[in-house]
Amino acid sequence: MSGTVRLYVDHPLGQGQTIPLERAQAHYLFGVMRLEAGAELLLFNGSDGEWRAEVAQAGKRGGVLVCRVQSKPQEVPPDLWLIFAPVKKARTDFIVEKAVELGVRRILPVQSDFTNSERIRAEKQRAHAVEAAEQCGATFVPEVADLQKLSGLLDGWPAGRRLMFCDEAQAGGASAQAGLAALKDGPAGPWAILIGPEGGFSEAERARLHGFEFTHPVALGPRILRAETAAVAALTLWQSVLGDWQ
Amino acid sequence: MSGTVRLYVDHPLGQGQTIPLERAQAHYLFGVMRLEAGAELLLFNGSDGEWRAEVAQAGKRGGVLVCRVQSKPQEVPPDLWLIFAPVKKARTDFIVEKAVELGVRRILPVQSDFTNSERIRAEKQRAHAVEAAEQCGATFVPEVADLQKLSGLLDGWPAGRRLMFCDEAQAGGASAQAGLAALKDGPAGPWAILIGPEGGFSEAERARLHGFEFTHPVALGPRILRAETAAVAALTLWQSVLGDWQ
Repeated sequence: MSGTVRLYVDHPLGQGQTIPLERAQAHYLFGVMRLEAGAELLLFNGSDGEWRAEVAQAGKRGGVLVCRVQSKPQEVPPDLWLIFAPVKKARTDFIVEKAVELGVRRILPVQSDFTNSERIRAEKQRAHAVEAAEQCGATFVPEVADLQKLSGLLDGWPAGRRLMFCDEAQAGGASAQAGLAALKDGPAGPWAILIGPEGGFSEAERARLHGFEFTHPVALGPRILRAETAAVAALTLWQSVLGDWQ
Repeated sequence: MSGTVRLYVDHPLGQGQTIPLERAQAHYLFGVMRLEAGAELLLFNGSDGEWRAEVAQAGKRGGVLVCRVQSKPQEVPPDLWLIFAPVKKARTDFIVEKAVELGVRRILPVQSDFTNSERIRAEKQRAHAVEAAEQCGATFVPEVADLQKLSGLLDGWPAGRRLMFCDEAQAGGASAQAGLAALKDGPAGPWAILIGPEGGFSEAERARLHGFEFTHPVALGPRILRAETAAVAALTLWQSVLGDWQ
């Protein structure tokens, strides 16, 4: 990465492909980053891998890039969702950033019984996910869903998707690592991780979650973890035991 | 925690023990948090557990607290060190905070060959560790060592302490989870986790680290992780496989 600009573009990428730039992109590349015609940069669009490209035309209000060689194949993380109740802005940003780094397919903010009603601006979080991918070298950008009620998400839960339920009240139960390892020989398939809000889940939510056959409760150690720490810890455990860290 | 003030004090705690307050503590409790005589709060000092205490005297420049009942026994995390090369301030703060939450005995900032020479203010980081413990309900506060050279730390490496070396260049090697699990039946004992700087380790450092018998290199998945993400991921893996999450 070392200094080379890495840009997400919403445009097909391929050998010799030209990419017209919007005004904001031109401003960033030529105004802020001071690239000139002939300069090299890296492009990705979330589906065609990463490409070395060159500035063909540079202007104040636009410009054109040309794709040269693919520098990285498209990577697709395991079919894992991260479901969490938004916390304060900086920590929500952090959760989105870490989900991109650690590799998930979708990020789903939910409102639970004890969630503070703070609105999450999905568009901002989508931009934040793109920025995180630009910075960490990822070629995939997870989808950020609109805020929805946890109860509604559970009502329409997709068949076959398992749920790693990180329940703070579960501390003292089976260890996460052993619990997940036991599932390793089970059928492969889609998963989701659910991180509780800072105030925990309500009794009704907890009872409902424990009642589902697809729910696998896990404990994240004996200490209390903040929501964003729990998110990174849960993603790490899942990836290392069931995901693509093996 | 829900609203109850939780305060670290550098004073012995025990049944009936009185604790005189310094000016800054009095300002915080009576000026900022508006506690009055008779109010309850929680105290810990890193070695005597957590105690319910009461305000016996409240003044502008001082005051006295009295310990009533122990509310939590003293917890001591496993004998694990976290060694890392300081990154930008916000992310260094974050690493210290997460190390407290996830449970380590010592935090050791080091200068490596490629570390930006940014000074780390150890006193500030110690205060940050105390604050993190106050907030997450921990009764133990890890020691934050002064910044030292990685080479010097390795010169005086303590006998019997093993090192989980999180080497970015190791990606594609043995999985962290399997690698650590293989050590589970080995002799118990002290450990340290070493997280690389954003710019990676130098070839000389890497060669030296791989040459030690106490070094156990692990890979943290196929994607590039930022230093603070690697720290949380490594602590999670260690705690879940070898530490007290079992």
